[in-house]
Amino acid sequence: MYNQKRLRDYEVNIGRLETGFYNAITDVEGVTVGHVTLSQGDMQTGVTAIIPHQGNMFKEKLIASSHVINGFGKTMGTIQMQELGVLETPILLTNTLSIGTVSDALIQYMLEKNPEIGRSTGTVNPIVGECNDMLLNDVRAQYVKKEHVFEALQNASTEFLEGSVGAGTGMLCYSLKGGIGTSSRRIQLEHGKYTVGVLVLSNFGILSDLMINGRAIGQELKEALLKSWEEKDKGSVIVIVATDLPVSERQLNRMIKRSVAGLSRTGSIITHGSGEVIIGFSTATKIPHEKSADCLTIPTIHEEDMDTVFRAVGEAVEESVLNSLVTATHVVGRDGNERPAFKDLLKKFNINLKQ
Amino acid sequence: MYNQKRLRDYEVNIGRLETGFYNAITDVEGVTVGHVTLSQGDMQTGVTAIIPHQGNMFKEKLIASSHVINGFGKTMGTIQMQELGVLETPILLTNTLSIGTVSDALIQYMLEKNPEIGRSTGTVNPIVGECNDMLLNDVRAQYVKKEHVFEALQNASTEFLEGSVGAGTGMLCYSLKGGIGTSSRRIQLEHGKYTVGVLVLSNFGILSDLMINGRAIGQELKEALLKSWEEKDKGSVIVIVATDLPVSERQLNRMIKRSVAGLSRTGSIITHGSGEVIIGFSTATKIPHEKSADCLTIPTIHEEDMDTVFRAVGEAVEESVLNSLVTATHVVGRDGNERPAFKDLLKKFNINLKQ
Amino acid sequence: MYNQKRLRDYEVNIGRLETGFYNAITDVEGVTVGHVTLSQGDMQTGVTAIIPHQGNMFKEKLIASSHVINGFGKTMGTIQMQELGVLETPILLTNTLSIGTVSDALIQYMLEKNPEIGRSTGTVNPIVGECNDMLLNDVRAQYVKKEHVFEALQNASTEFLEGSVGAGTGMLCYSLKGGIGTSSRRIQLEHGKYTVGVLVLSNFGILSDLMINGRAIGQELKEALLKSWEEKDKGSVIVIVATDLPVSERQLNRMIKRSVAGLSRTGSIITHGSGEVIIGFSTATKIPHEKSADCLTIPTIHEEDMDTVFRAVGEAVEESVLNSLVTATHVVGRDGNERPAFKDLLKKFNINLKQ
Amino acid sequence: MYNQKRLRDYEVNIGRLETGFYNAITDVEGVTVGHVTLSQGDMQTGVTAIIPHQGNMFKEKLIASSHVINGFGKTMGTIQMQELGVLETPILLTNTLSIGTVSDALIQYMLEKNPEIGRSTGTVNPIVGECNDMLLNDVRAQYVKKEHVFEALQNASTEFLEGSVGAGTGMLCYSLKGGIGTSSRRIQLEHGKYTVGVLVLSNFGILSDLMINGRAIGQELKEALLKSWEEKDKGSVIVIVATDLPVSERQLNRMIKRSVAGLSRTGSIITHGSGEVIIGFSTATKIPHEKSADCLTIPTIHEEDMDTVFRAVGEAVEESVLNSLVTATHVVGRDGNERPAFKDLLKKFNINLKQ
Repeated sequence: MYNQKRLRDYEVNIGRLETGFYNAITDVEGVTVGHVTLSQGDMQTGVTAIIPHQGNMFKEKLIASSHVINGFGKTMGTIQMQELGVLETPILLTNTLSIGTVSDALIQYMLEKNPEIGRSTGTVNPIVGECNDMLLNDVRAQYVKKEHVFEALQNASTEFLEGSVGAGTGMLCYSLKGGIGTSSRRIQLEHGKYTVGVLVLSNFGILSDLMINGRAIGQELKEALLKSWEEKDKGSVIVIVATDLPVSERQLNRMIKRSVAGLSRTGSIITHGSGEVIIGFSTATKIPHEKSADCLTIPTIHEEDMDTVFRAVGEAVEESVLNSLVTATHVVGRDGNERPAFKDLLKKFNINLKQ
Repeated sequence: MYNQKRLRDYEVNIGRLETGFYNAITDVEGVTVGHVTLSQGDMQTGVTAIIPHQGNMFKEKLIASSHVINGFGKTMGTIQMQELGVLETPILLTNTLSIGTVSDALIQYMLEKNPEIGRSTGTVNPIVGECNDMLLNDVRAQYVKKEHVFEALQNASTEFLEGSVGAGTGMLCYSLKGGIGTSSRRIQLEHGKYTVGVLVLSNFGILSDLMINGRAIGQELKEALLKSWEEKDKGSVIVIVATDLPVSERQLNRMIKRSVAGLSRTGSIITHGSGEVIIGFSTATKIPHEKSADCLTIPTIHEEDMDTVFRAVGEAVEESVLNSLVTATHVVGRDGNERPAFKDLLKKFNINLKQ
Repeated sequence: MYNQKRLRDYEVNIGRLETGFYNAITDVEGVTVGHVTLSQGDMQTGVTAIIPHQGNMFKEKLIASSHVINGFGKTMGTIQMQELGVLETPILLTNTLSIGTVSDALIQYMLEKNPEIGRSTGTVNPIVGECNDMLLNDVRAQYVKKEHVFEALQNASTEFLEGSVGAGTGMLCYSLKGGIGTSSRRIQLEHGKYTVGVLVLSNFGILSDLMINGRAIGQELKEALLKSWEEKDKGSVIVIVATDLPVSERQLNRMIKRSVAGLSRTGSIITHGSGEVIIGFSTATKIPHEKSADCLTIPTIHEEDMDTVFRAVGEAVEESVLNSLVTATHVVGRDGNERPAFKDLLKKFNINLKQ
Repeated sequence: MYNQKRLRDYEVNIGRLETGFYNAITDVEGVTVGHVTLSQGDMQTGVTAIIPHQGNMFKEKLIASSHVINGFGKTMGTIQMQELGVLETPILLTNTLSIGTVSDALIQYMLEKNPEIGRSTGTVNPIVGECNDMLLNDVRAQYVKKEHVFEALQNASTEFLEGSVGAGTGMLCYSLKGGIGTSSRRIQLEHGKYTVGVLVLSNFGILSDLMINGRAIGQELKEALLKSWEEKDKGSVIVIVATDLPVSERQLNRMIKRSVAGLSRTGSIITHGSGEVIIGFSTATKIPHEKSADCLTIPTIHEEDMDTVFRAVGEAVEESVLNSLVTATHVVGRDGNERPAFKDLLKKFNINLKQ
């Protein structure tokens, strides 16, 4: 998208399933993504908004589920999502110390669109994920303001940038610059063709562990570099999985758990230091906020069809992480801390990713 | 059922919802229950079988869920039930040290009915619950044999005994004799009338905590008795919740968790000593073992209708426990250990339960 | 405390264990509680702060655990608490739509006390619980500001008010006014005497279900009243359990789960409508933020001692809910909505709670 | 061990950490492993016993935890293990339809060693894991008898065979023969040197997904072979993680969850079809069955030391799976079904694993 050089442009293809048109989470019909990037000096942070469908999310909720790979994180809203199995707001991503501001802004956004909240009906459950960008960003300064949230929601589109943008502005990936990455897979079942789309906010890994499609490129780079940026891994990643597959919340939960296969294949050992949280939703069924006189009818796939779905999730997560890495640009941030871009290192050391 | 004097025959009514015809788990269409009672000298144990529907359970599975209140127990089969959300065998109850034998018998029963298991399709997940009847029964002797399991399954009927029967033969309830109890509630929703049925295997509580509909009858009895049977509570109870409500596995899980309200209102403090496990299933939808070309369609109630359902579960569990208590008969078992029947104490001390 | 008439002043004693000196969560050495009450016209809300110990919470964390009874709520911070088993901030309670503001303020409070956060060490995990006070409070107005949070933290003391104060200002309990309540129990084990303290933010229940020590007082009141305030229960309650017992996070989790026994005995059926979340911590061991060269040594009680602890939790939760009810005062709030005080009804109908 | 050619004998080294002396689970002091192999015609199954320490497991329990990666399995005993955080029996592995018999035998074994079970103290919680060997073994015949369990326990030793032995006799790995594999890692912390040992019962994967240290050897083999054994993956694996690290049950749970990184790096997409369950224990602290007058004191590592531990688990799991693959021998079983040995294919196609 937008002329960024992505993993497949290096002739590296992850897995065996077909990608969607954009090879992005927005290949799932109705999904849009918007960023606000705050990049100046010590301020290297931002907001990314994922809008699951273009109607009123509160009135037409989506089946949703979350899964915690490693809980050293502050993602908000998962208690209710697990209890009720639905998503009723856009999903927002930001830095760790801005979750309060961003959730407050998301509440305000939902109140404005739904005058009945807190009056004739109950409250709303904002979903906000975060990673810690403290190395490149002055996270204590809490640069993210409410208007940035509204702007990111406003910006949302089917095409969007990857790398050092939005919530990913100050994030790291395998000791280099990381941030936002995305990918998708198409699945053919007997009753239809479906899409699994993934977006990640990558902020994990140490360079020497990095693998691309089985190649230990991290070790190659570490040896080539005179200086290493390896520090203790803070291990954080937020994974958003979107699909139009008709699945129950239990099936969706099974699906999204397979993200860890993709993360592992890029070299992750799932470190202690920060949060690895997955949030998934299906656009196949709208769950009405208001009760009707009849039962709801939820179409679901047969469990036997799960294997292809699981493969799709693993592949799309793996490719999303690598897309976040190969698209990210060099950032100099707080106190002059910096992290190189993977793509610049490829050029510098004349490395060809194609196998 | 069967002319046993049950709680309502003492003019004590629990809660405000209407009961089903039998006031039993078998008020849920298709459910049957069978016992084998082994009661002689040191042998005070048995098997109880709950058959969820009268077709082939393996080929037509039911949406199911389990919940652990206290996990000091050995119930089998819940890992798969939670992953796949289905029940594919009858549920068997027995004593703690007989779970191996009983699960082996249940496997054999399923193999005989389904020659494709382990050949053209995978294996089967037997569900076996247990409580520890070691005070009245010589549990080390492992009296339960495979044929008792087949017999209990064979015996299953819509009418069945409560109290010191089947798996409940040697169980205790609030330091007195307990065992099998059952109750049901009817629920009117906009789209239909539904039933929630409960069966408990009670084996928990100490006398001085016993409450019946708010009355601290346990303390009254303790004062009236010269001798107390209070010992450390082993806290064990298995609760089976059946319903014909169209619910997802997530909704069913929410439902069955409300069992704890009913247990608490009989006086339970949910002690450390043994397992409190709930297993629930809905007969509303049959989930076919074999994949068809189409999506499955799962009807589910709106979440807003849950409150009445929750009330029904709490009431039926409370009444089931009390039914197990008031129907149980005096048992003298292992090494002459004995526990009185609550009903005998009522007579002895001339206590009227009616309020 | 502070000359409020509490449940025991009505000569109603819950359970059989001894209370602590204040019969409050602050009987656990080091715990303090502070309120900010915002009560004027449509503004009927506030903030309550529970400070677990008087040192630096971030540098000396406490073993902690959370448990979700019903997840229709927005409590923040539990993902990390479950993963790492520690609490590193005060706990704040407020209304549902103020969690963003309150968590932001708590982050700011922690940043000021700990200049190394986001610099030489990672971030901080704020814990914020909430209930929905929309009936009496204009929750959409988001009246709670950051300075209210700082003020509540500043106000914290071993003595504090119950009822319609702090986060409880606009909350309901069994269709009447509820809010903040507290209680404690003392436990004698072989190796020492310990305390379990509970604080609740009550906001659940319908009048006709209310029971006090087995008495169906809710039905009595409903019959006595010409007008009923019964509406759909929104079922929300936050329970904070503090103890100085040496327990592991697993043991603490077992403890706090027993809260549901106390809630149930006041009449709760654990409705669908809102969040019931428990957060517990033990002051017995301080977990240092910084790694030392040696292993940590965690003293823990033997599992066999759990039964008394479980009883203490159930009793203290039951009494805390009832204290929130009997201390609450009549509130007229948003759009003239109002809820009577239980104590006023007792006087009006000349009801004596003593049994 | 025992002159089998293992992965490192092919000059393939997984990861960067040092192995223990045997490069086996038995590098953890006190751990022994025993097999009974039933291999004749249609009977291709067996039993594997892991004995965690050589004392009385019931009287001196070990801190333990389990984790379900995919719950399509029948592993027994995890409910109690999660509630109480301890292991009190050896761990037994077998085929899916023999769990009843094997648990019954394990109960009997424990009863014989502990005459107080079911008399002066409660019951015992047997731990039995399983995979489905139905392709090569006539699983319906239930060949495993109680005496095989006693024999496997009797056989246990610090040195043991890998591959097509014990419970692994009829299991598959990446469409080839699999079974038992093991590996270990040594970890240096400030306060001591520790070991993480892993044993797997492998029964998952399809050939074309197989990766060895980043090399897509499965695709190479698939192209070389005229016939493919690829069928639907049944995805099953049991992972046993032993350590002498002083860890709490929560820390142990975090550790064992990292197994999935190792599984994924061999190519697993974590398929739907069967159970992937991990059981871990630490020998660092013995938890006495009997209560003493004092608190227990549990030494635990600081959370910051977890990253090395996590790396060790991932590496040892990855190498264990590959050891199960490279040591397994060609098996012809039920109805003439057969699976080749990986090592035979290497020879046949003249493939050198060394990179």
